[in-house]
Amino acid sequence: MSEYPVISDIIEAKKRISPYIHHTPILRCEKMESYFGCEIYFKPEILQITGAFKIRGALNKALSIPPEIRQRGLIATSSGNHAQGLAYAARMLGVKAIIVLPADAPKLKIENTKALGAEAILYDGNTAARWKYVYELAEKTGYVPVHAFEDPTVMAGQGTIGLEILEDLEDVDTVIVPMGGGGLISGISTAIKETKPSVRVIGAEPAMTPKYYESRKRGEYTALPDAYTVADGLRLSVPGKNPYPIIEKYVDEIITVSDDNIKEAMRMIARDEKLIVEPASAICIGTLLEGKLKVNEGEKVCSVLSGGNWDLDALAEIYAE
Amino acid sequence: MSEYPVISDIIEAKKRISPYIHHTPILRCEKMESYFGCEIYFKPEILQITGAFKIRGALNKALSIPPEIRQRGLIATSSGNHAQGLAYAARMLGVKAIIVLPADAPKLKIENTKALGAEAILYDGNTAARWKYVYELAEKTGYVPVHAFEDPTVMAGQGTIGLEILEDLEDVDTVIVPMGGGGLISGISTAIKETKPSVRVIGAEPAMTPKYYESRKRGEYTALPDAYTVADGLRLSVPGKNPYPIIEKYVDEIITVSDDNIKEAMRMIARDEKLIVEPASAICIGTLLEGKLKVNEGEKVCSVLSGGNWDLDALAEIYAE
Repeated sequence: MSEYPVISDIIEAKKRISPYIHHTPILRCEKMESYFGCEIYFKPEILQITGAFKIRGALNKALSIPPEIRQRGLIATSSGNHAQGLAYAARMLGVKAIIVLPADAPKLKIENTKALGAEAILYDGNTAARWKYVYELAEKTGYVPVHAFEDPTVMAGQGTIGLEILEDLEDVDTVIVPMGGGGLISGISTAIKETKPSVRVIGAEPAMTPKYYESRKRGEYTALPDAYTVADGLRLSVPGKNPYPIIEKYVDEIITVSDDNIKEAMRMIARDEKLIVEPASAICIGTLLEGKLKVNEGEKVCSVLSGGNWDLDALAEIYAE
Repeated sequence: MSEYPVISDIIEAKKRISPYIHHTPILRCEKMESYFGCEIYFKPEILQITGAFKIRGALNKALSIPPEIRQRGLIATSSGNHAQGLAYAARMLGVKAIIVLPADAPKLKIENTKALGAEAILYDGNTAARWKYVYELAEKTGYVPVHAFEDPTVMAGQGTIGLEILEDLEDVDTVIVPMGGGGLISGISTAIKETKPSVRVIGAEPAMTPKYYESRKRGEYTALPDAYTVADGLRLSVPGKNPYPIIEKYVDEIITVSDDNIKEAMRMIARDEKLIVEPASAICIGTLLEGKLKVNEGEKVCSVLSGGNWDLDALAEIYAE
């Protein structure tokens, strides 16, 4: 595979991983529709195994590595969801895994990673520094690094979400996807644009870390300084090297969302739709709260709820606000 | 129809209401299975229109009333979910509705009922007193009372959940159902036992208001004094007259659950399955936390998550505990 997946890679990925994962349902959100004037649907990957979409890419990669190499072990860094996905895939295949987690990752993500049998190493440093450390460890141990968003086989796995949306919601008009490293939206936008180009793909990015938004505005790859956003899964300030050209090619619009609107979306999704999402997922509905996503009456808008792994006490704080 | 529904009534109800409601999915809960040693599934009626199963019975009843009578209006009392279900059905059919709610009902349930266009009257008194008031108002206004659990047409509507479970989870072994007035479990147990009697039906009742449990133990219909339980939807202390014989006939076992275990189940369902349930739904998993429900390895156990309408600030308190 080159640096980017094509539709046949995603179709292959779907065949490869489907026996092991959930084909999550499409949920319609009547209640929320009265606020936004369009039809709203969720693709709830919060209900996926490990509580997030990441198992799709991690498992597609793990199954694609020749067994004799895979048995040396798998290694990655992740704010927590790729960690759980890779740890799950490794356990399923009977190989060891090392995961480097940011020291301030949600406790739930750290605990879940350990509970899946992976060796969890807490590391104080930004994403780039953590990946550097991972590649050093990989060199030393022989473990195979599985990159969360630069790897085209991982992207292809995440892209299976796009195929499932087109399958289950045939007349979907618009799909909103959170943008962290960019692996998720690279996979989904490839699946959608190479199958049905008329469907709009919207990227949702935190206003505090708008790396893809700024890159598009300036017309060139732009790294931003580190910054804080409540959306721990989207805290990266540097576009992915491999996702960047795919996003430029296939994503129709990038919308930035404030932390306040991310939190308001978390409350709305809880109150009206009874679902617990982490901030990185709520951002999709945040694009509508911002008033920036233009929709027509009757338009079918599908938000990808990428994950739901957040500490209950942190949830409680946001729900009580 | 007599005082109890039979399987043909439930099959008819399914045809009648299916075009207007969600056929909710079956969700598998891998994470939770490691604690309990059986396969765990949810039938999440929290994802139903109005956030609870009650729309099924209310709509089945409303559609069964001759239009010339129905147009006089519909009236009921409810701790909130039947209120929303009936208000929704009335709005859909273009008729007025009056709902008498307990003064201490969750704000969300009261607001949602009003938002659906019903006239909401707050009334300070227990369920029996509120029904008495409803029948007086019905007499005065000509509105048609729709009882939440005594009415066999309402029960038949709730029973459609049982048919959907048998359809989507063919080899289910055990179904756990919350017991409030008893309308839900009457409908579901009739659907299941008159289709596939080998499936176990378990009733889950708060330890604070164990009216059906005590009635079974004593071998006779037993009204208990009013008592408080966190499960507002199950706060009734008197068995339903019509549900009681159905429950005695079809429910295999009744298990009581403490408020502490109801709250612990709410946290577990939030943390591990990303779903917001009200206490009246969490009680199903509470039967397992109590250690009272005996299950075999590999047994397929399906919990009916009846509703998810609870105030976010009250949720926050429980999540923070």
